[in-house]
Amino acid sequence: MPSNIFYTLQKSSYLDHKLQAYADSDYYPFHMPGHKRTDKLEFPNPYSMDITEIEGFDNLHHPEGILKEAQMRASELFGSKASFYLINGSTSGILSAISAALPPRGALLMSRNSHKSAYHAAYLRELNTIYLMPAATEFGISGSISPASVEQALQENPGIGAVFITSPTYDGIVSDIQAIAGIAHSHNLPLIVDEAHGAHFMFSRKFPSPALRCGADIAIQSLHKTLPCLTQCALLHVNSKRIGLSLIKRFLDIYQTSSPSYLLMSSIEQCLRFLREESVSQMAEYTQILQAFYRKSENLRHLKVFHKSSCPPELCFDHDFSKILISVGSTGLTGKELYDALLHTYHLQLEMASGHYATALTSVMDTKAGFQRLAAALEDIDHKNRFNEAGGKGEPLSSDLIYQAPKHGMAIGEAMAQKTETLPLKASTGYISQEYIYLYPPGIPLVAPGEIMTGKLLRTISQCQAQGLSVEGLNDMSGKQINVVKM
Amino acid sequence: MPSNIFYTLQKSSYLDHKLQAYADSDYYPFHMPGHKRTDKLEFPNPYSMDITEIEGFDNLHHPEGILKEAQMRASELFGSKASFYLINGSTSGILSAISAALPPRGALLMSRNSHKSAYHAAYLRELNTIYLMPAATEFGISGSISPASVEQALQENPGIGAVFITSPTYDGIVSDIQAIAGIAHSHNLPLIVDEAHGAHFMFSRKFPSPALRCGADIAIQSLHKTLPCLTQCALLHVNSKRIGLSLIKRFLDIYQTSSPSYLLMSSIEQCLRFLREESVSQMAEYTQILQAFYRKSENLRHLKVFHKSSCPPELCFDHDFSKILISVGSTGLTGKELYDALLHTYHLQLEMASGHYATALTSVMDTKAGFQRLAAALEDIDHKNRFNEAGGKGEPLSSDLIYQAPKHGMAIGEAMAQKTETLPLKASTGYISQEYIYLYPPGIPLVAPGEIMTGKLLRTISQCQAQGLSVEGLNDMSGKQINVVKM
Repeated sequence: MPSNIFYTLQKSSYLDHKLQAYADSDYYPFHMPGHKRTDKLEFPNPYSMDITEIEGFDNLHHPEGILKEAQMRASELFGSKASFYLINGSTSGILSAISAALPPRGALLMSRNSHKSAYHAAYLRELNTIYLMPAATEFGISGSISPASVEQALQENPGIGAVFITSPTYDGIVSDIQAIAGIAHSHNLPLIVDEAHGAHFMFSRKFPSPALRCGADIAIQSLHKTLPCLTQCALLHVNSKRIGLSLIKRFLDIYQTSSPSYLLMSSIEQCLRFLREESVSQMAEYTQILQAFYRKSENLRHLKVFHKSSCPPELCFDHDFSKILISVGSTGLTGKELYDALLHTYHLQLEMASGHYATALTSVMDTKAGFQRLAAALEDIDHKNRFNEAGGKGEPLSSDLIYQAPKHGMAIGEAMAQKTETLPLKASTGYISQEYIYLYPPGIPLVAPGEIMTGKLLRTISQCQAQGLSVEGLNDMSGKQINVVKM
Repeated sequence: MPSNIFYTLQKSSYLDHKLQAYADSDYYPFHMPGHKRTDKLEFPNPYSMDITEIEGFDNLHHPEGILKEAQMRASELFGSKASFYLINGSTSGILSAISAALPPRGALLMSRNSHKSAYHAAYLRELNTIYLMPAATEFGISGSISPASVEQALQENPGIGAVFITSPTYDGIVSDIQAIAGIAHSHNLPLIVDEAHGAHFMFSRKFPSPALRCGADIAIQSLHKTLPCLTQCALLHVNSKRIGLSLIKRFLDIYQTSSPSYLLMSSIEQCLRFLREESVSQMAEYTQILQAFYRKSENLRHLKVFHKSSCPPELCFDHDFSKILISVGSTGLTGKELYDALLHTYHLQLEMASGHYATALTSVMDTKAGFQRLAAALEDIDHKNRFNEAGGKGEPLSSDLIYQAPKHGMAIGEAMAQKTETLPLKASTGYISQEYIYLYPPGIPLVAPGEIMTGKLLRTISQCQAQGLSVEGLNDMSGKQINVVKM
């Protein structure tokens, strides 16, 4: 494309023009989606493939033909009892699985570091939520959920009807799903695993074991996050009879549009065919390049790349090393500065920046050249910042300080239905929140609706704000006011 | 494309291959989506445009940049107070609007011929539903909702918190939204209009008046149904303060994936730009071709094309003539036979077949050649079937016989939460249904969960089955058993 057209597209205020300009630029994507905007996947003009439920093309909500067969092939590939195509993302799978697992006003045991869709399911169905707190790691990220904490919670709360765990997390932290499934099943409860970030686990033994092989009753996987598939595409796998198939279908029908996109479904089909036919060789090559990258990163003197060997297994049961977490270490940079340097100087677009690290997401569609660019950029930054051997700008807040066990006031749905009072955040101690307040990323709530505001929590929020972390979710954009239950 | 590749694609069991074969065939689409698989809209390889919420590309769930501006342009174009991009279809807009309008266990006045997503919202939020029955037309389709019936229902049910109307219907029938909005507002209630099938109304005065201009508080429009846009794309417009914006945003955040597709959002952007820049000339040309088609269809001797002039305004307030309803009239054919003849002999794929008619959906992207093919095919069929001047295979069941006012037992959510008993359909009189039973198309429930089965209803169901209409929704695939509330 001639550069003057590129310039026009870039300057346009239209989304499609800006996307085309980005596609034609030299920025390398160390971010989702996992297809990495590859040109290896051929696809005609999307309008030519986008139809509705006409003759011979079946109906995702009542599949009897080509979509039934496609989902059966997906089930076979992943070793599930049944698999469902999702075109409203893992979000719709998580909403459906939790809604199907519990009656309205039931009790859910869930990891605190769950995606917002799990909280949304609890709100819609007026569930009582009991939380599992992840371990804290020295690296400053949330660690695994310990099986012992699951056992303890189930013994203390006999009314729990289902267990929900996120594994891997956005940072790649995996919990011991086999042990947790064993505990849930010994209490005759189903285990739902949000494996949105781990759809690739099945395709190389070098990655952690997939939840389905570890005994999860339901696993939900985003195809677009770590595999070559269009955004919004995901799978829900069912592996037992602990949650009825007809209930799952009922809720998938509710939470997904009645006009599912044939374009998105085609992309799922294409992705699964790629996995069936080419994943063995391509995953072998990819994991070798990844391992070489990690070996090379050991030479960095100031930056530090997270590896599970640096973390005891009771804090990090396993780690998905496709997610490269680069700590600022002793460079003196913040996570955001590292992210910005990689973006602006090296044209490497990472997935995210946190207080003291930045994350590069990789996939089987990444190129050797991409990894070389990242390794070279890190070496360069490491070299340039050697002047600051004394260390960074102050210790980051570690996650055990940030994420404290919440103080329960009432259920999420109950709190949201009460009358509202708006208070200065500082004056909210003792009140019941009607809001989520969370750090973004990773989007784990510091407080959820129904929880009681405490002095310790307010101190944590102000420490996070002082460190320049992005505290979100407060309805008041200045972050100074909060909606609470009117007392 | 060489024919041998076409053959391979057609025979493939993969969805994407079959779609490509269909795209390369000579079948003409008188069905959704409204872009009609046009090659007028240019789009690069979709993988090249599909990204995530990276630097500069905003976040649909917290728009502050390019997506905020895009939605403001949409609002300006449609004349709303605020407009929202939907990437989980009108389904997500209907779920969100109803959830925002009413507290859990509130009461909703809704037209009986509503899309299933309205019933789903009632189920999720445990609403009480009071139904408005559409008028019956001589053509055998459901007519308009009368303003008088809205006034009567509101006077008889003082607890109602919101009104929900579908206009236009799948058949194109429009209700008097201005009068209904006036009545709702006089009771201080919001009116939500499911205008999924009428997004094009705004762009030519020859179509019925759009709901927003008639005073609806919220209108939900599918862009893909009648305009050039990819499937799953829709808009939710807000036009008053009767339903709080923050509540609407809360539910859009819940019912839509946290990873919205930039591909779908780009298609919305492209569609709205087309409407802004080209709709005046293109809509003028399109409506002229449509009118010419209707004039020509008056010459048919046996087939009959529906026109609003044949129906008194109290039964059909207005009709969207972009939806061409072709009655079998006196040809002796059934709707399905007419549909099959058009498909197999003339390679015209219509949207749907009902008992006694078939529907061709048209849009601004249709070609003159497409309309000529349809007109010629209809003339040909009309001519060939002249031997059967005596009339069809028996009178179709008219919609007033099929759709009777339901007999209320309990709320949808309450019924679904009870214990289940499975009975032979014939023996279910007096029991409370746990299922939807509906004719597909149009998908209007004959009975919904919580309603009492009656002898008259069972007779209607067996008459429909005897006429070869597709009675769906019974969990038992043979259509002989039903799940009811255990007594």
